[in-house]
Order: sequence, then C-alpha cells, then structure tokens
Amino acid sequence: MKKVIPISLAHRIVNHGPVVLVTSQIEEGKPNIMAVAWITPVSQSPSLVAISIADEHYSYKLISQRGEFVVNVPSSAMVQEVMACGRVSGRDIDKFKETCLTPVSAEEVLPPLIKECIGHLECRVKQQVKVGDHTLFIGEVVKAWAEESLFSEFWNVDIKGGAALHHLGGNNFAVSREKVIVKE
Amino acid sequence: MKKVIPISLAHRIVNHGPVVLVTSQIEEGKPNIMAVAWITPVSQSPSLVAISIADEHYSYKLISQRGEFVVNVPSSAMVQEVMACGRVSGRDIDKFKETCLTPVSAEEVLPPLIKECIGHLECRVKQQVKVGDHTLFIGEVVKAWAEESLFSEFWNVDIKGGAALHHLGGNNFAVSREKVIVKE
Repeated sequence: MKKVIPISLAHRIVNHGPVVLVTSQIEEGKPNIMAVAWITPVSQSPSLVAISIADEHYSYKLISQRGEFVVNVPSSAMVQEVMACGRVSGRDIDKFKETCLTPVSAEEVLPPLIKECIGHLECRVKQQVKVGDHTLFIGEVVKAWAEESLFSEFWNVDIKGGAALHHLGGNNFAVSREKVIVKE
Repeated sequence: MKKVIPISLAHRIVNHGPVVLVTSQIEEGKPNIMAVAWITPVSQSPSLVAISIADEHYSYKLISQRGEFVVNVPSSAMVQEVMACGRVSGRDIDKFKETCLTPVSAEEVLPPLIKECIGHLECRVKQQVKVGDHTLFIGEVVKAWAEESLFSEFWNVDIKGGAALHHLGGNNFAVSREKVIVKE
C-alpha cells in the first residue's frame, strides 16, 4: 500500500541518490518513461528536486511542454525494467507496454505514477536552466508517496524490498541493502 | 594510489549518488569541509556537477568568493567523519583537525583533496542558481581522481573498500556493497 508522506519529508524519497524512472505526458499523448540517474533534491522549503535531461530526449519535449513530471523510485528488483527504459525512445514505442509496468493516475499532475515503484514525487516545473549539454528541470514536489511498509521517517533499505538501485554508469548498478545509523 | 581519470568519465565518480565531502577555501583562510548529499552530475561535455548548499553555510561563503570546490567521495568506512563534518560549522573549528582527515594539495584549484577519500573532482564554478532556500553551484570538473584499485571504467563497489555511502537523512545511511551488471 502506498501512503502520502508530508512534503517536508519528500526530499528523503531521493536523498540517497537512487536511479529513478521519470514519467511525463502531454494532454494529447501517451505517457512516457525515462531512466534518470542525474537527480537530486535542491531545496527543503519549498520542496524542490532537480533532474538533468539532454535536449534530444522525448521526455525533454514532454516535460518542457506540460511543465510536469513524476519521479518514481524503483526497487532493486526492477533493474531490467530500468535498463529497458534507457534502451529505446518513447517516440518509437510505448514504454509501459514494452516493460509491462503499470500506469496509475497521479493526484496533482497529468503524468502517471508507476505502480511497481516504491516511492513517487509528483512535480511541477518551477525553473528550467540550461547547463552544458543538458537542461536542469527544477520541480516543486506537490505530492509525495511511499510504500508504507518501507518508509517511516526514513527509507528502510535493510528490509526485504527496500534495497535501492544506484547507477554506476552503462549497465553497471550498485545495490544498497544495508542501513547504518550513526550514534549521536 | 590515486590516478587521474579522463574528464569524459568524471561524472561516474558521483553517478551512483553517494554522499560526498566538499572542500572549499579562500586565499587568506583555512580549508573547510562540508558533507553534501545533494549533488548530481548535470552535463557530460563540458563535464559539470551541481551541488546544492544553503546560504547560511560557511562553505556557501567560501565557494561564492573563490569560485572553486572539490568533491571528495568517502568510503563507507568514513561514516563517522561524514557525520562529524555535518555537526559543526567551519566558522568555529578547523574540520580537518576535528576529523583527523588529511588535506592534500589539488592540482588545478586552491581547496584541497581529502587524502582518505577514494575519489575527487576538482571543480570551477560556472553558474550559480538560486533554487528555493538553497543555491545550486554548477562546477566544471577540471581534474578527476580515483583510487586506482577501485575504479577502472566504473567503480568496483563489490570489492573491499569500494562500498559507497548514501545519505537517507538525519543520521541514517545506506551502504551499497553489491554490484549488478545487466546483460545487454
């Protein structure tokens, strides 16, 4: 079961640097999915996240046009789906069909959540900044979700299903299954 | 031993979303260290990384003034030092002394590398963007280093000393020790 989490905790959905699946959509089209490793929270209040996307991507076009995107955090079991989303362009194929992932309506934005993912940030673009050969989309989190069994105040990466996937580059991923709590 | 790595691979030093230690310094002062989880590569060519820092931090002042910083990637064994760097301000104490970490001269910028870390990006600020309650410093990587036993084309997180540290929030960290290579 997914639960809504407070916007003040939304940055923790991606604070540990996981690879994510970003969904985008325009009124007259199908939703698209893109694997994104270049993402970070950038502000606490308002809650802002930045994603960096090259201009030639189909997702760049959809996010620029609609001004909305959803950040979906896959579990470590979804590594094949993450790679599949990076292999082809949504211009040519329907990535939801290709990957057998399931779109679920978001509450505040048009692009859908991906049901199989363990966390979601519904975002509205506030700033768009050209940086080298990419563009940074700075999105305000308007709704945040997490799998209730895996997230309380923080992610529980040390229990079944909670492990996170981190993109090392190419087809190499690191998996974090272990949690360390430092004594104050 | 640290080796210089090609700028074209520099983004892979932080592509997997580790928490990092950012060093900064001005001509007339001691170097400072700040723990930063909000970091991502943002461009391939030129090689740019973005770090998000709140304006009240001492590092904000030093990086704004000098226009340089170094990104240092700690090993997972350095979790206590990472926490220590987050607990106090460099205005009040010398964090190198406090943490017993060792400054080593960088080649292209004034702020030092941290010897105990496993990877380093020497950066010059190209853009500074106000985002909500933080500021994004977009730095161009002018020199990149990695521990030669741990990095070839990618990080080897599945061998001793290569595990990465990811900040979940507060005093909670995830550790990635496992590597998955997806078959093409």
